[in-house]
Amino acid sequence: MDYHTFFLLLAITLLAARLLAELANRFGIPSVIGELAAGIIFGPSLLGWLAPDDTLKILAEIGVILLLFEVGMDTDVFRLAKAGAKPVIVASAGFLLPLIAGFGVSFYVFELSLLVSLFIGGTLTATSIGITVRVLSDLKRRNSDEAQIVIGAAVLDDIMGVIALAFLYEFAVNGEVTLTSIGQVSLFIVLFMVLGPIVAKLVGWVIDRFDKKSESPGLLVTMMVSLIMLFSYLAHAVGAPAIMGGFAAGLAMGHNFRISLARLLHLPGMHKAHTIMDANPGLSHRLEHQMRPLIHLFTPVFFVMVGVSLDLNAINWTSAYVWVLSSTLIVIAILGKWLAGYMIRENRLRQTAIGLSMIPRGEVGLIFAQVGLANSILNAELYAAMLIVIAVTTLLPPFALKWFYTKWGDKPGLAANPPPP
Amino acid sequence: MDYHTFFLLLAITLLAARLLAELANRFGIPSVIGELAAGIIFGPSLLGWLAPDDTLKILAEIGVILLLFEVGMDTDVFRLAKAGAKPVIVASAGFLLPLIAGFGVSFYVFELSLLVSLFIGGTLTATSIGITVRVLSDLKRRNSDEAQIVIGAAVLDDIMGVIALAFLYEFAVNGEVTLTSIGQVSLFIVLFMVLGPIVAKLVGWVIDRFDKKSESPGLLVTMMVSLIMLFSYLAHAVGAPAIMGGFAAGLAMGHNFRISLARLLHLPGMHKAHTIMDANPGLSHRLEHQMRPLIHLFTPVFFVMVGVSLDLNAINWTSAYVWVLSSTLIVIAILGKWLAGYMIRENRLRQTAIGLSMIPRGEVGLIFAQVGLANSILNAELYAAMLIVIAVTTLLPPFALKWFYTKWGDKPGLAANPPPP
Repeated sequence: MDYHTFFLLLAITLLAARLLAELANRFGIPSVIGELAAGIIFGPSLLGWLAPDDTLKILAEIGVILLLFEVGMDTDVFRLAKAGAKPVIVASAGFLLPLIAGFGVSFYVFELSLLVSLFIGGTLTATSIGITVRVLSDLKRRNSDEAQIVIGAAVLDDIMGVIALAFLYEFAVNGEVTLTSIGQVSLFIVLFMVLGPIVAKLVGWVIDRFDKKSESPGLLVTMMVSLIMLFSYLAHAVGAPAIMGGFAAGLAMGHNFRISLARLLHLPGMHKAHTIMDANPGLSHRLEHQMRPLIHLFTPVFFVMVGVSLDLNAINWTSAYVWVLSSTLIVIAILGKWLAGYMIRENRLRQTAIGLSMIPRGEVGLIFAQVGLANSILNAELYAAMLIVIAVTTLLPPFALKWFYTKWGDKPGLAANPPPP
Repeated sequence: MDYHTFFLLLAITLLAARLLAELANRFGIPSVIGELAAGIIFGPSLLGWLAPDDTLKILAEIGVILLLFEVGMDTDVFRLAKAGAKPVIVASAGFLLPLIAGFGVSFYVFELSLLVSLFIGGTLTATSIGITVRVLSDLKRRNSDEAQIVIGAAVLDDIMGVIALAFLYEFAVNGEVTLTSIGQVSLFIVLFMVLGPIVAKLVGWVIDRFDKKSESPGLLVTMMVSLIMLFSYLAHAVGAPAIMGGFAAGLAMGHNFRISLARLLHLPGMHKAHTIMDANPGLSHRLEHQMRPLIHLFTPVFFVMVGVSLDLNAINWTSAYVWVLSSTLIVIAILGKWLAGYMIRENRLRQTAIGLSMIPRGEVGLIFAQVGLANSILNAELYAAMLIVIAVTTLLPPFALKWFYTKWGDKPGLAANPPPP
């Protein structure tokens, strides 16, 4: 494609996203719904002005990585650590319930093959962290206690989802999966998520020093984007989702992230003396300031492209089979995540908020379904059913959460949003 | 190519650009030379880590468009208008001298065909406005009086160069060119350059109003990028270089651009009463602030990609013919622009600064040469000779200007840089 056509595509993407987001806002609908709708309306489903162009897809991917960078910056590691096992429980339950129920129904009730049933179960597992975070932001709840648990859980089940996809794919191609390779990938990912932020913090410190000395402007933003891109590449290389690179880099650049030998080695008393690298609020502020225009520019491309990928023309609307299968899976997809919220000790309202927040499937489910279609694991009918499930689970929760918070948001059970640090 | 490889490419591009720009700075060399060198070193000429990837090329193109947007914002239309005919004279002379001399030498001395000779002449015509502006910025002379003339002239001869390319291409394909179509394209371009900024100003005013009312952040930056992309598309559609879209939008958003019926209609006295749209310094400031990180991120990609496109491996270093031809053309390319500086009434120092600033050929010459190669107008030997000419005329002037301003920069003939508005 020549450059100029791309300029037009990019302009349409940004204009459509903003127009529909503002419209949604005006009607009290979370604006992310507007951006998704922009993709559906201007994409192949309706007008056909936008197609899943390669460069737009790359910009979309950069968009969600930058969004996760921002989420990482806003995440307080120690507050997350205080949540303890809760995110792990929510993530595990929200991963296993839809996987097992989705697999069971497909295999035993719809009598699909083993591999197909596993693939369908897998498609239902991963929460779309991008959409979840965006809805909570739209509702001004991103700094709430329940949001901390949701973000932790969504990060974990995204990782589990990508591992599951990698191994289902291996199983589809080779007919077998070795447990050692699962263990190896998991180990690499854990190492990346632990060492990544520490390395990023050290690099950030070096960047900060050079930025203060550099005579030509723009060092901070170009170096930080390089770091984020490099980390995304590394995350993918160790088998994690690329967006975890953005998240790891963001964690390290946050207001509260400090590297302390004492904390690392659990040496109380030596706390002060061994702080290698203090939190650097100056750097965090400048970064937020300079990264914000980039985040605002790239993230709408991501949400529009999710809408573009939801090609509703691929669905045979008259097939009863598609409707029965997808309705069953929608129930499983919603209940699986919703119930996961009730597995932890929290008050009932917060449990509900957490469960509802975990429902959006979005891009991870789409990737699953598209890998399945491309490798002839899913036929057109099954692919269509999965598209319906993903569309409903992506588009419904923003409305549900909006309704929920409007009705219960000021009850004592849901602590008001603490002000951002 | 998959996403993750692209992330790595982008990280290498940004890191290499910054590293070599800082190194260049340290040795007192204009930093644009560092970014160009990064492309040559990491590109196919030497290491081969970077290739002219499609997505990187699009980001590069966005980079130079955003750079021209910034140049437009910094350009004072009325100060430019005061320069009067000077930019027109410099542009015309700097276009015609290399075209005629380049054609003459190729046709009569080297006995090349008519079309090839015209193409070689055409390759020598257009100043790379991106590189010129960047060098003047590096030397902190972008707001000087001579820079105003250079920018005006570079904009004009870029337009002439693109028209020349379009018609040479038509001539190559159809064997004939009609003068009416030249007239038509020129008319469209003039209309675009006059009406574009006025439309952009009106759109900017609407954006500003919505930005103040919008509840979700980022309206200003996404709408402005959409506008710039749309204008670049339109510029190309009317036959102008796409970067003129960025320049036209930038002009309108500048600190000093106001639309006044009185000024437009030359009605003195009614000046105050009929100001439709005043300059809006608030908007200009917010725009500069929010667009700057984008400009810093995208422009290095452009300069690196120019370096990547200068594939020195394509040159047969042992061919005497290539050396004789390219040396001759280098002399013409340098003298043609340099002498153009002396065609206007200015003091000798300023004339010299203007002439030297017009020498860089960069991307426009590269496009010419590549179109010629792709359409079998230039053979490998001629293409190589053009590459040498472009490389030398791109890499030499930053050093020459640096030397010139270091030696003569504080003489009274070269007014010190007026502070930015």
